[in-house]
Amino acid sequence: TGDKANGRTLVYTCNGCHGIPGTNNAYPQYPVPKIAGQNEQYIISALHEYKSGDRTHPTMMAQAQSLSDQEIEDIAAYLSSIAAK
Amino acid sequence: TGDKANGRTLVYTCNGCHGIPGTNNAYPQYPVPKIAGQNEQYIISALHEYKSGDRTHPTMMAQAQSLSDQEIEDIAAYLSSIAAK
Repeated sequence: TGDKANGRTLVYTCNGCHGIPGTNNAYPQYPVPKIAGQNEQYIISALHEYKSGDRTHPTMMAQAQSLSDQEIEDIAAYLSSIAAK
Repeated sequence: TGDKANGRTLVYTCNGCHGIPGTNNAYPQYPVPKIAGQNEQYIISALHEYKSGDRTHPTMMAQAQSLSDQEIEDIAAYLSSIAAK
């Protein structure tokens, strides 16, 4: 089970592009998905796909490869618990 | 530019799994992302990735391959215009 409090800390690094809790991001012309309020299992699945390379995106692969399975669950627990923006 | 009205018609087929405008879907144990209110350019990018096979998911590849580039823009225009749930 994911630890929301730890997830809240971990998502600090996501903010630059995903712009939690707003929708702004550093590259407004780049199609960065909104992730606040996203489905918990989808977030877990997506991060594992990036970690394994089944889903490819240079930045997200690097980020996911730095995360443990528990950290992925923590991030998903937090993001799915907050309101969609 | 996407045609929201046509997009609204086209997303009928998305509802079974993505559950617009709610979050229910036919397979609650399957990690289906929320797409209502998602970033317009991200939706366009994701559907083109499924269409080309750069992003793999059997159902979504089949769906995207049935869509024209204009229909993808229409769907993105509609989904990005509605409130996140």
